[in-house]
Amino acid sequence: MTVTSATIPTIKFLQQPTSEAWIKQALANLDTLLLDHSHCERKAAGVAMNLMFRYPSSTKLVRSLTAIAQEELEHFELVNQWLERRGIAMAPLSAPPYGAGLTAQVRRQEPHRMLDSLLVSGLIEARSHERLGLLAQRCPDSELAQFYRGLMASEARHYGIYWTLSTTYFDRETVSQRLAELAQVESELLATLYPEPRIHS
Amino acid sequence: MTVTSATIPTIKFLQQPTSEAWIKQALANLDTLLLDHSHCERKAAGVAMNLMFRYPSSTKLVRSLTAIAQEELEHFELVNQWLERRGIAMAPLSAPPYGAGLTAQVRRQEPHRMLDSLLVSGLIEARSHERLGLLAQRCPDSELAQFYRGLMASEARHYGIYWTLSTTYFDRETVSQRLAELAQVESELLATLYPEPRIHS
Repeated sequence: MTVTSATIPTIKFLQQPTSEAWIKQALANLDTLLLDHSHCERKAAGVAMNLMFRYPSSTKLVRSLTAIAQEELEHFELVNQWLERRGIAMAPLSAPPYGAGLTAQVRRQEPHRMLDSLLVSGLIEARSHERLGLLAQRCPDSELAQFYRGLMASEARHYGIYWTLSTTYFDRETVSQRLAELAQVESELLATLYPEPRIHS
Repeated sequence: MTVTSATIPTIKFLQQPTSEAWIKQALANLDTLLLDHSHCERKAAGVAMNLMFRYPSSTKLVRSLTAIAQEELEHFELVNQWLERRGIAMAPLSAPPYGAGLTAQVRRQEPHRMLDSLLVSGLIEARSHERLGLLAQRCPDSELAQFYRGLMASEARHYGIYWTLSTTYFDRETVSQRLAELAQVESELLATLYPEPRIHS
């Protein structure tokens, strides 16, 4: 994969770029990808909400994640408009091992749990940013490409927010070290392409 | 309690009006009430999100609840601005038996579970509407009263949406009958004032 200017900010977080195999799988299955994308936006809102519930006294976290949850819900709506436009019925989809694989890395005890939760969310946003960027560049439907381009900026902002929150509650060295470990796992989880087309296959 | 024009729409849903004892308790503890209100808005957003997760293929439900979740998050932010302004630190609060008492009424099996969940949410919104209306009328801080007045309209819309969703997925007679049963429980749960000031004490 050629790293373009659009994906450069991601490099800080991700250890391996997305494979050409994923891009081909995605472009050949844009409808399924949109349906999965809808689930991803809803899940991202849910994850931000869950963290707000878990740490109700952490004012900065609550404030930042409220904004993220709102924005993910807006995206959820926008993706759903695309589903409607293309006549794709809302339906459940099997989840690739990516989300569960990352969640399994979250240590159970505080304060580790908070750090890991923030970094895992940041990594998922970084990967989404990278992949939406690839779709924006390579999608043959120019309107859909434009839509992906529009979402990219938010995803970039979101992983920036998760990073900032991590460094608000933990020292920078602890954050960087743990991020490197988690980013390693994140890239390994994507090393084998999930047979079904997914945003995180 | 005198039923004023502000509370009339609520009457369709609620079996008993709020007691004067609650109003006195609330007005004497406006700071605690604001903190509890913040939790209520976050919980309301969480409940709407959970229903979206549980019924991802019910397009109308998903669409309506996305809008509700977004609005609850906006209110959550607004209430949090009031907390900041009054120097109230974000902190957990013990929950009154109201929420758990209503959740216990939700039957476990579908499709009853969906009906009960929608109606319980509608009842909570109806009660919030009534109580924010009382605060709007009686709160001695005119700016805060104005704030409550502003939120009331949304709460009214929300219980309307929950009602409409119920009648989208269930026949009207089934809905009315179950609503009467749940409204009975709802009023009973509030018959004894919770010793701590809460929106639903």
